[in-house]
Amino acid sequence: KDSYSITLLPGDGIGPEITAATKVALTALCEKSGFTLELKEALIGGAAIDAVNDPFPEESLQQCLSSDSVLLACIGGYKWDNNPRELRPESGLLKMRKEMGLFANLRPAKVLPQLMDASTLKREIIEGVDIMCVRELTGDVYFGTPKGIDVIDGQRVGYNNMIYSEMEIDRIARVAGDIAAKRGGKLCSIDKANVLDVSQLWREVVTDVITKDFPSVELSHMYVDNCAMQLIRYPKQFDVIVCGNIFGDILSDEASMLVGSLGMLPSASIGESGPGVFEPCHGSAPDIAGDDKANPLAMILSAAMMLKYDLDRPEEAKMLEDAVEAVLDKGFRTPDIKIEDDGCQLVGCVAMGEAVAEVI
Amino acid sequence: KDSYSITLLPGDGIGPEITAATKVALTALCEKSGFTLELKEALIGGAAIDAVNDPFPEESLQQCLSSDSVLLACIGGYKWDNNPRELRPESGLLKMRKEMGLFANLRPAKVLPQLMDASTLKREIIEGVDIMCVRELTGDVYFGTPKGIDVIDGQRVGYNNMIYSEMEIDRIARVAGDIAAKRGGKLCSIDKANVLDVSQLWREVVTDVITKDFPSVELSHMYVDNCAMQLIRYPKQFDVIVCGNIFGDILSDEASMLVGSLGMLPSASIGESGPGVFEPCHGSAPDIAGDDKANPLAMILSAAMMLKYDLDRPEEAKMLEDAVEAVLDKGFRTPDIKIEDDGCQLVGCVAMGEAVAEVI
Ligand SMILES: CC(C)[C@H](C(=O)O)[C@@H](O)C(=O)O
Ligand SMILES: CC(C)[C@H](C(=O)O)[C@@H](O)C(=O)O
Repeated sequence: KDSYSITLLPGDGIGPEITAATKVALTALCEKSGFTLELKEALIGGAAIDAVNDPFPEESLQQCLSSDSVLLACIGGYKWDNNPRELRPESGLLKMRKEMGLFANLRPAKVLPQLMDASTLKREIIEGVDIMCVRELTGDVYFGTPKGIDVIDGQRVGYNNMIYSEMEIDRIARVAGDIAAKRGGKLCSIDKANVLDVSQLWREVVTDVITKDFPSVELSHMYVDNCAMQLIRYPKQFDVIVCGNIFGDILSDEASMLVGSLGMLPSASIGESGPGVFEPCHGSAPDIAGDDKANPLAMILSAAMMLKYDLDRPEEAKMLEDAVEAVLDKGFRTPDIKIEDDGCQLVGCVAMGEAVAEVI
Repeated sequence: KDSYSITLLPGDGIGPEITAATKVALTALCEKSGFTLELKEALIGGAAIDAVNDPFPEESLQQCLSSDSVLLACIGGYKWDNNPRELRPESGLLKMRKEMGLFANLRPAKVLPQLMDASTLKREIIEGVDIMCVRELTGDVYFGTPKGIDVIDGQRVGYNNMIYSEMEIDRIARVAGDIAAKRGGKLCSIDKANVLDVSQLWREVVTDVITKDFPSVELSHMYVDNCAMQLIRYPKQFDVIVCGNIFGDILSDEASMLVGSLGMLPSASIGESGPGVFEPCHGSAPDIAGDDKANPLAMILSAAMMLKYDLDRPEEAKMLEDAVEAVLDKGFRTPDIKIEDDGCQLVGCVAMGEAVAEVI
């Protein structure tokens, strides 16, 4: 197969800009490598609310499902912050994950030597850090029922159910085991089993799956509060981390801030089968939207993950990753990764996309 | 009043050692200031399990409730890690919090100039950081029902209810508002209101309480995942943080690791009335128990919080805090805060307690 249909979801804020820059880089890659990407845009987030009053319209879902893969920029913005929950950009994201069955979210937190000094942590602490965070994405307190706000004995009570089934834990443990086996062979499972029943089941099932079916993987367990500390104290101890949805939300963001270049980090959300969704870890940065200041590299690296995980084009993925490193080596920096007096050249989003295309 | 009854809970691991060192410091303080502390020990944690097969026996609870205040060292250890949940040290801690109504946990994360280099974060990032984390301690997914592990449609499902009532949110917001008004006047409330119903209620009630009854306090809201990042990116932006039990568990540990000296951090757990419980933030460090390597300063600083919050002796609290700083200025260091080539003198737990007493 040498032609693929890709749904592009530009979303909100800096989304359209970084999508445009990513397109430029992908076009160069296609020309060079002799394959075709049919890129077709669809609506999500605030843009979709404004256009059709639905943060993830059925039409977008159908288009995503019938594509080979989906590339998402970012969603959200102050403008929709006071909407009722079902009319907020985030709800579109959650609906997309659930309806597309994207139960596994992979977020690498890898320190790039060129950007090490952008971290607030000391160089010797983060040098060589390379963590893969595997977050469960369609369960937990995010989707658990019963939930709501009720009046009980004359006062309001808000509640959400933190819930996992064996099946849900089993399948995310397998994804994590698989990845750990292909990487450093170490897997750390995160829970709060000293307090939560759901964590007790989590720990049991993860232990079963890994010890039975991934004998080469060395499994350890850590409480979520301790992990939040250990990521700061000694991040090099981690290889692959696996966690539930809410703990993963918190810890993967913490881990990505460690490496000092959130604007550089891609992510992949995948399911049992069907297309995955690939997106940068950063948000939509409405404050700089339209100013040509955004960093498109996280989205370009997300496209590399797409090539690797969904399109089975590992060589082209590597080409794209290498091109990003080459551009950094050449000294190009968007404002978010520019450090005073680093001797590097400040560029905008457009120029950064073109620089990557150039290298390719 | 110049005589107070204090229940001491030495607990497990390094607990007995740091309790002994704290006693030495408190004895010196009492002599100097002319008041009396009647210190009486009671059982909790693994020690209580071993002695009476209950991690927080009724007798300990009654003794705590009839004291003026409670000073706890630390609990837990590998030895009890595989016990059923109700026979684990942590269960004793949770029972104590619930039965004594200790709904507010105060955890300062303040950088001590003498120890700044012990942090893994860069000096310019943490210099001057002084965060007070106010964590709700008797609600949330920790105590919510229904909970359990059931078999549904042939597979096991684990669940815990993340739940807060208006009353619970209201009273913790008042504690946080009070503290913020007396400190820098800034309060940041942490939630996940873009996803969780319980967080939506949390945000609403906190906003109501603070805007109505704490007009001098500047309130902001932040999502928990973003907070995990911001603590690393720019911790100086925070003054007081208020969060639910599980988010507070994670974020207060993260914040305490920032400042680089977990062995130095005290905490206070207080209720509407009745005695509070004061304890170091660190764990029981079973690996160094009995080796005279533990750092008693967090427990001594916890005693200072006790003097301030429970015994209404702010001057004596200050004396104790000043003594700790003086000992650090003199260059005494336990192994956990010793940095290679810092020219400081390595001391054990006993000597550290004596050094504090000496200064007083
Ligand atoms: C926007 C929000 C609903 C989302 C989440 O919590 O999953 C985001 O924080 C993320 O991590 O992708
Ligand atoms: C030991 C554990 C139950 C406890 C908690 O989660 O509250 C601890 O982590 C803490 O923060 O005091």
